[in-house]
Amino acid sequence: MKDILTQARLCREAAPTLTCLSAGEKNAALLELAAALEAHSEDILSANAEDVAAGRENGMSASLLDRLTLTPARIDAMAEGVRQVAALPDPIGELMEGRTLPNGLELRQVRVPLGVIGIIFEARPNVTVDAAALCLKSGNAALLRGGKEALHSNLALGQVMAEALKTHGFPAGCVQVVEDASRQSAQTMMGLTEDLDVLIPRGGRGLIRAVTAEAKVPVIRTGEGVCHLFVDESADLSMAADILVNGKCSRPSVCNALECVLVHEAVAAEFWRLALPKLEPYHVELRCCEHTLALAPQSVLATEADWDSEYGDFILAAKVVKDIHEAVAFINTHGTQHSEAIVTRELENARKFQLEVDAAAVYVNASTRFTDGFEFGLGAEIGISTQKMHARGPMGLRALTSTKFLITGEGQIR
Amino acid sequence: MKDILTQARLCREAAPTLTCLSAGEKNAALLELAAALEAHSEDILSANAEDVAAGRENGMSASLLDRLTLTPARIDAMAEGVRQVAALPDPIGELMEGRTLPNGLELRQVRVPLGVIGIIFEARPNVTVDAAALCLKSGNAALLRGGKEALHSNLALGQVMAEALKTHGFPAGCVQVVEDASRQSAQTMMGLTEDLDVLIPRGGRGLIRAVTAEAKVPVIRTGEGVCHLFVDESADLSMAADILVNGKCSRPSVCNALECVLVHEAVAAEFWRLALPKLEPYHVELRCCEHTLALAPQSVLATEADWDSEYGDFILAAKVVKDIHEAVAFINTHGTQHSEAIVTRELENARKFQLEVDAAAVYVNASTRFTDGFEFGLGAEIGISTQKMHARGPMGLRALTSTKFLITGEGQIR
Repeated sequence: MKDILTQARLCREAAPTLTCLSAGEKNAALLELAAALEAHSEDILSANAEDVAAGRENGMSASLLDRLTLTPARIDAMAEGVRQVAALPDPIGELMEGRTLPNGLELRQVRVPLGVIGIIFEARPNVTVDAAALCLKSGNAALLRGGKEALHSNLALGQVMAEALKTHGFPAGCVQVVEDASRQSAQTMMGLTEDLDVLIPRGGRGLIRAVTAEAKVPVIRTGEGVCHLFVDESADLSMAADILVNGKCSRPSVCNALECVLVHEAVAAEFWRLALPKLEPYHVELRCCEHTLALAPQSVLATEADWDSEYGDFILAAKVVKDIHEAVAFINTHGTQHSEAIVTRELENARKFQLEVDAAAVYVNASTRFTDGFEFGLGAEIGISTQKMHARGPMGLRALTSTKFLITGEGQIR
Repeated sequence: MKDILTQARLCREAAPTLTCLSAGEKNAALLELAAALEAHSEDILSANAEDVAAGRENGMSASLLDRLTLTPARIDAMAEGVRQVAALPDPIGELMEGRTLPNGLELRQVRVPLGVIGIIFEARPNVTVDAAALCLKSGNAALLRGGKEALHSNLALGQVMAEALKTHGFPAGCVQVVEDASRQSAQTMMGLTEDLDVLIPRGGRGLIRAVTAEAKVPVIRTGEGVCHLFVDESADLSMAADILVNGKCSRPSVCNALECVLVHEAVAAEFWRLALPKLEPYHVELRCCEHTLALAPQSVLATEADWDSEYGDFILAAKVVKDIHEAVAFINTHGTQHSEAIVTRELENARKFQLEVDAAAVYVNASTRFTDGFEFGLGAEIGISTQKMHARGPMGLRALTSTKFLITGEGQIR
């Protein structure tokens, strides 16, 4: 078993080669990789079966088991995902800006890879392939550290990918699946400031918080979402209720789900008359302020902790507010700067909300569900950044790049 | 005396107001601020005299005393700098990209302020005003922590700026000059993850390393420069010698200075015959490999530490290399990813060098001295980033911004 330091060093050594590859070379390797996944699906499935059996034995929950389990169809979907990444435009070499300076120097700012990207994730083997493809396409080496529950699956996928890349002459360090899945190896990884350029945690809130708090390597914080809907006095209430149901009930565990609805006091009674029957089929538990409680007697009184909770479940916090000012202040206090929405007919309030709410994505008259790299037209998604530095919101390939100034002259000095 | 937590909290409270200001409002306040600096130059000079007297008493070096000392002309220059910042285009609200999605949603990505920017710097009072102006222009609140040697000067400047901003109705938290200049306050500042969005150290290598290593707040690492010149076999050797002299001798203490020259073995003898007389007037000490030593007998043999040294002085490391491959590998091992230059006539080598050298600015046939926000046409400079995340190379106003997606629909759900 290689230790994580050895594997990180392999990534660092591979990075300069990757930086210089053309889009054509990268795409050919990605297509090879996709074909290899399909060709070796038996091996991958049998490794996965070991993980699934162990998970079952250890009492893993049904939803986690489902995420862990691979099927022929899921392997095909992985391969298809890799082909889609191959089809995307290459961000590397993109000219961001350029000018000729007064002294005749030609200045260009171009996109370059970050170098080595570390990803820490949980027991979803498809992340292994997805992350590897996005890192490769953007010219980065990838150190992939998945949950120990998926170790056999991940190693099998890593093996298949390494062989496919080898036939294209790519160094083994391009994609390294971490072999030591101990807690200690994750800790070590977070301190590899020389070998990793950035660390991206993908998974639940606990994982992300731990990595953000402990890592010495620069982190891109992703995926924490306490998202709000504000139903303004002038709102189309039926539209608001539909957006609420979509935002809460379509997939409650995803980070762009609504966790809290704020309703203008002038329309609260009418809104809840409309919304309650639409929520009912989903058995949504309401935790709310006293005013809302009077309008929705089946609900329970919220505690202070409810206003900051990412339930990830069929639970919804609800509060009546006296105006848009209170709504904006509440959101900026309790939100996680992910996705926030207003339903309104008033132009002034729409503008105010989009200007003043501090979040990665701010919606007027639309569901927060659209916060997604594919929906936004980025063609891919490595995660949704909830920080302000480097990248904010859904991150596509460009989020995995840096820039470089190239200056060409004929002997200029200063 | 306000403690640093109180001051940071004032910045955080001011941030939402600053986010919403128009360019016109910010510019008017900056012009007022510039006028106030001139109007109160007596007060500023007398506060500065206290710092200078104390510095002299404590045996501060002549160069540090020079950086600390203000004069009427230097105050005028500060005011003029603020007016130049006022004249720059406002980065906030800039539309980065936008599209109408297939479902009819209108998506826009716009620039927004980062929020609260912390700056830790040394005993140069002009940084106080310069940083305040750049932060304000980009809609950010600023927490400015200068060296204790300049405390009286900085507080006087802070007072003048606060009064000018107050007449425009700006909250006091827009610019806070840290009143507690103890070592403990700097430590506290580095941990203010709730109140600061980013921390930028400005100053010497020791300061930057300490802040980068210890801060919990995201840091933009700036200003460390071990820059190289590679003189290729095909170089115009006279051009190369001029670029070397400019890069080493014009201002050795600045981060874009050359610290090391690598010379192709085929032209080493001729290059040093040309270059040595040009370096002589500056009494440059050469520390070099054995091969170079034979060509420049006045020099001394380099130790391993020399290859990683940022001298900031009239000292130059020098090495003969056998080809461009060795030069690129050496630079990528020993450089600090700041500015690197090649002198060559070969197109292939020029392209190879710019592609493979991993640095913020890579030059062909020009001096590394041009790595500077003003020279690059950014209109301003808050520092030179030597990291890959968020911003790389000279940072203008855009480096002080984040982005936000604004999405407007008519009830779309997913």
